[in-house]
Amino acid sequence: MPLQYNEYYNEQTGLTVGLKKLLFSKQTAYQLVEVYETDTWGNLMTIDGMVMLSEKDEFVYHEMISHIALFTHPNPERILIIGGGDGGTAREVMKHSSVKHVDMVEIDKAVVEASKLHFPGVGDFENPKLQILYEDGIAFIKNGSEPYDVIIIDGSDPVGPAEGLFEKEFYRYCFDALAADGVLTTQTESPWVNSYHPSIKKVFTALGDLFPISKMYTCAIPLYPAGLWSMGIASKKENPLSGSTTDRISDAGELLKTLRYYNPAIHSASFALPTFVKNIIEEK
Amino acid sequence: MPLQYNEYYNEQTGLTVGLKKLLFSKQTAYQLVEVYETDTWGNLMTIDGMVMLSEKDEFVYHEMISHIALFTHPNPERILIIGGGDGGTAREVMKHSSVKHVDMVEIDKAVVEASKLHFPGVGDFENPKLQILYEDGIAFIKNGSEPYDVIIIDGSDPVGPAEGLFEKEFYRYCFDALAADGVLTTQTESPWVNSYHPSIKKVFTALGDLFPISKMYTCAIPLYPAGLWSMGIASKKENPLSGSTTDRISDAGELLKTLRYYNPAIHSASFALPTFVKNIIEEK
Repeated sequence: MPLQYNEYYNEQTGLTVGLKKLLFSKQTAYQLVEVYETDTWGNLMTIDGMVMLSEKDEFVYHEMISHIALFTHPNPERILIIGGGDGGTAREVMKHSSVKHVDMVEIDKAVVEASKLHFPGVGDFENPKLQILYEDGIAFIKNGSEPYDVIIIDGSDPVGPAEGLFEKEFYRYCFDALAADGVLTTQTESPWVNSYHPSIKKVFTALGDLFPISKMYTCAIPLYPAGLWSMGIASKKENPLSGSTTDRISDAGELLKTLRYYNPAIHSASFALPTFVKNIIEEK
Repeated sequence: MPLQYNEYYNEQTGLTVGLKKLLFSKQTAYQLVEVYETDTWGNLMTIDGMVMLSEKDEFVYHEMISHIALFTHPNPERILIIGGGDGGTAREVMKHSSVKHVDMVEIDKAVVEASKLHFPGVGDFENPKLQILYEDGIAFIKNGSEPYDVIIIDGSDPVGPAEGLFEKEFYRYCFDALAADGVLTTQTESPWVNSYHPSIKKVFTALGDLFPISKMYTCAIPLYPAGLWSMGIASKKENPLSGSTTDRISDAGELLKTLRYYNPAIHSASFALPTFVKNIIEEK
């Protein structure tokens, strides 16, 4: 029997990845962080048995959680990332020349450590614009700070330490921490996993209550449960589908050349939701 | 160890589905057709160990291979389905009131038999508009017939009996079998499975050589390899993104209410390709 990693999202149904060996394993105060060398996806990080990223597919998640927000904001300078310890989201954010400072608030140092050791192409940790704070993201944002232009919530599933990232109270703190034209994005799970529907619905109800503009968008991430992934954007002023957003994307030719998933057409198209996905957030 | 079905698309990486029992198994002259009762996807049909459909996710594939073409054609009356023995594509096609006759050319009677027995909600086999021909689809189209308005190639992967469905010669026969405003759609595999890239490239090069309009589009199918699936449309006259196509979709309110994935926004958005997918068909 070959060595395999299994993540079951519905009883015995899920993803199987062929493994070569275990490279990293640390049970921290928060969670079990592991890295495997896989057969065809490069190195793979899991937290408490859930896939976080592989070297081969991480670009989809990191591009889509970053660039939708960064292009929506007219001049993003100060960015907050909650979670995101692997560094991939910060890497994408710092491709925008307007960005002056990124605070990354990661609760678990082991995630950064594992990424630095086994995902050399993912993080841009030496970039002087990046400051890493090893703190609880919810406590950090509750305490207040200088306002941010963009907040990206790059946490794991709504179980364990990331559970609070799906609560309205948390999004209220985020709203307060954003500048007057601030934009927020967050990952909101697989529409195919029925047990997450209440969490998804709760997030979009909260964003709709708090922000004048809020929308779901999707992308296709092969190693995440059922492959289709939802994300949310909420904005105080600028619409992600406005003409000025489109103009900013068109002007970013050099940045776009570095990307493998996101492009101007994908930016708009990602907001078109399959009917069954739309129903999760729209049905009363 | 629980009973599980595994489909590996990259070495030991792939999909795992929890099974309750085997319901149907027939080795035909062409392939091994099996149906399992699964833990959370309803019944599941596999051919030679590759997932064809589950009761829970079949709507994505069947809606997307049918309605993009049927709405693109101004008045689709005569339809040819090559393959499609489970009946789901014919069911979607026959929702269009303009459709008068559907020929479904399925090489393997066992697929229809398995569907009738174990997928009662998938096929609309008693519909008098549907004629099933148990023949080789390539030979059928080569022999010529009255012209079709729409041809849908609903075959399996480019190995085994479906291999010829990825050849230019086959698409030339399809072109000849289409009326002057004819439209064709075909499934073209997972962009994440590198070994299929040459087949994908070959299909789109052939369609581009033969038809004035040809485009790739995608949809997200949870039980297919890596979840993101590509399809192709080729048209002699009407552009799938034209205003008249959009008007026809807007006028189809009652039909759209029966669908769970396809909707007017998805129609257009499905043509926006992630950059790495576009590169598969555009790179020289």
